[in-house]
Amino acid sequence: MKRTSRDIRTANRYEVLRQIIAESPTSRQELAAATGLSLATVATLVGELLDLRMITEVGFEESAGGRPRGLVAVNASGGALIGVDIAETYVHVELFDLALNVLARAEEDVRPGESLPEQLVGHVAAAVGSVVTQAGIEGARVLGVGVSVPGQVDRATGISEYAPNWDWHDVPLVDLLSEYIAYPLYLDNPLRAVAVAELWFGAARGSGNAVVVTLGTGVGAGLVLGGGLHRGVSNSAGEWGHNTIVLDGRLCRCGNHGCVETYVGAPGIMLNLRELSPDSELLHPGDQTATIAALARGMRTGDPVAIEVVRHTARYLGASIAHLVNLFNPEVVVLSSWVAAALGEPLVAEVREAVARHALPRPMAATEIVLSPIPTDPACLGAATFALEGALQSVGQRSAKRTTPARTKMHDPR
Amino acid sequence: MKRTSRDIRTANRYEVLRQIIAESPTSRQELAAATGLSLATVATLVGELLDLRMITEVGFEESAGGRPRGLVAVNASGGALIGVDIAETYVHVELFDLALNVLARAEEDVRPGESLPEQLVGHVAAAVGSVVTQAGIEGARVLGVGVSVPGQVDRATGISEYAPNWDWHDVPLVDLLSEYIAYPLYLDNPLRAVAVAELWFGAARGSGNAVVVTLGTGVGAGLVLGGGLHRGVSNSAGEWGHNTIVLDGRLCRCGNHGCVETYVGAPGIMLNLRELSPDSELLHPGDQTATIAALARGMRTGDPVAIEVVRHTARYLGASIAHLVNLFNPEVVVLSSWVAAALGEPLVAEVREAVARHALPRPMAATEIVLSPIPTDPACLGAATFALEGALQSVGQRSAKRTTPARTKMHDPR
Repeated sequence: MKRTSRDIRTANRYEVLRQIIAESPTSRQELAAATGLSLATVATLVGELLDLRMITEVGFEESAGGRPRGLVAVNASGGALIGVDIAETYVHVELFDLALNVLARAEEDVRPGESLPEQLVGHVAAAVGSVVTQAGIEGARVLGVGVSVPGQVDRATGISEYAPNWDWHDVPLVDLLSEYIAYPLYLDNPLRAVAVAELWFGAARGSGNAVVVTLGTGVGAGLVLGGGLHRGVSNSAGEWGHNTIVLDGRLCRCGNHGCVETYVGAPGIMLNLRELSPDSELLHPGDQTATIAALARGMRTGDPVAIEVVRHTARYLGASIAHLVNLFNPEVVVLSSWVAAALGEPLVAEVREAVARHALPRPMAATEIVLSPIPTDPACLGAATFALEGALQSVGQRSAKRTTPARTKMHDPR
Repeated sequence: MKRTSRDIRTANRYEVLRQIIAESPTSRQELAAATGLSLATVATLVGELLDLRMITEVGFEESAGGRPRGLVAVNASGGALIGVDIAETYVHVELFDLALNVLARAEEDVRPGESLPEQLVGHVAAAVGSVVTQAGIEGARVLGVGVSVPGQVDRATGISEYAPNWDWHDVPLVDLLSEYIAYPLYLDNPLRAVAVAELWFGAARGSGNAVVVTLGTGVGAGLVLGGGLHRGVSNSAGEWGHNTIVLDGRLCRCGNHGCVETYVGAPGIMLNLRELSPDSELLHPGDQTATIAALARGMRTGDPVAIEVVRHTARYLGASIAHLVNLFNPEVVVLSSWVAAALGEPLVAEVREAVARHALPRPMAATEIVLSPIPTDPACLGAATFALEGALQSVGQRSAKRTTPARTKMHDPR
């Protein structure tokens, strides 16, 4: 776990940029206070980011009893980032400026049965082409493309190690994508992406301890612990969806029985509906999106079957999210991804009650359970931050060789 | 989550001392490499610890192409620390020198039915008196007493907020203990204590990501994440024992149903035995210690009932520890506390197989499952480190006021 001084420098540079993006304009003094770094270190890192034109000087603010403080802000037009959210039922792509404002978006439906890597890669390539054209930017300004794909991924090699829904094993996804996409590609999974999105811009902002529960076709838990993302030793932390919640329960696509996912993922919810009311009009066989949408409408109109299905699902969610509350003692549990967004507050209300029945009272009292407040696709946003991190790492390495003490001194406000 | 510069200084001072205790003798250069701190910062902190007589200069080592490097080591006789492990069936107390060698130990049995705070406090007071007498040290040298008590504790106020086994609610334990014990008292719980013990001296040493599963009367998970202890927002992380593993399962002393603890804690194992073989001679009704000891003997002699009970228990442990492997993606899972120590390697072998049946293959492949290698009581050892941390914090604050730049410069080897 020992980090080299270059690792630490790269991490600190990224942390300073993250603070500037979150709080533009800001001063070196505020950045030092927010990051815990010394003012001298912050001044050096701000100098590097100015050199890279990722941030700009934007004036001065009066300082009580001292010299005016120089203010910096993110240079929104200093580059573009693309975030890709590959899910079982759709591909979302968003193009962002450096302040992480959305400039363009594109969506492709993934039809039931489409599960070959080439099919998914085709959707991604089409949508990435679309956002670049829509935004009308020069290709050279795209600093990188972050790609979120379900399952376990190896970030270093760009390989999708295991994606149970498509039965993918060791698919070289970045290699396949790079045949269509000329920008640098950075692979990770939706748990990591949504956790970072909430940490930067959502419900985990300012919170050191948050669990982001993704409810989609698959389900999982993105972990923000001690102020940062928890990846685990092989980047597979958060696989809550494959925790056994019912011994010898429903067969899961991972091969095991009784996994959380088989009761609360979209296909699990469809099965809950089928078991409760086999002939329900709410059920659209083979179509998760339509069924969840029908349940959401049913909740709004007071359909007793819809209410009962959501309550039944919330019962499993309650026990399983209580595990997370007991284990992590988080400040906030965020419900994210498309099923949570579709079922909305009525689901959250049922989940809160159900979690309270299973979690210990004290950690429960310390935890809020909320819907993700991020208005766009959090996995695209998080994936874009991974592209920013990767871009910063590579330019930072080049810049570190160039930078001399004399050069960085120029930006030191002391 | 923002830390003040004093918090950071205190944490760094503690981290440097921890490294010196783990690796005496060592040089400032090695300490800087191990901690990621600058050499100048390390030199200042080493100077403070020398002033406090917690460490001493012990000579020089040759340095390739440079001046000889000064070596420092922990000053073992610079103070004493006491660690107290209050469990449901015993009170263990150990007295340590500053190098955390055990100088004396005492044990009190807690009889079934003894559950009043005054009864437990009496056992602690007797055992603390015993170790101080045995060690023959002056009272002034005891820097503090760390106390581990099951359940949820408030470290700042020294209150046992909730201990389900005794039905304690908001018991002012430190206040009660301070009527008998004149040394500074530091309260925490066994999950935190054993996690720190493994991080400093056991299976999590050098590992950034470890889960320490305690198997005693109650059960829980001490969390070492990203190189440090994970406490959660209200110091109650790791309450794995009260996660629901069987919906509508056995009634737990916490009031819920189907908690992990009801199947794998010592009383749960007794119930597993009773259900499998109601008339077994292995069963000592009302006596957890004797029953677990009989099962351990039965495992060694090939008793089929003992083997079946342990296998059955391991089945629940397998599903529940698989949750931890999937969620945390740890480098190592350590089985600790008295039930794990008593049942030993035969239990670990069964647990490994059972976890592998439930966890995802990739995080499972990244995780070792081992018995705690700490030969003494890990909760006493961990509790003693909390006393050291507390002592260092208070002396550090006094010393920080005294220390001048000129004084610390004297120890700076540059």
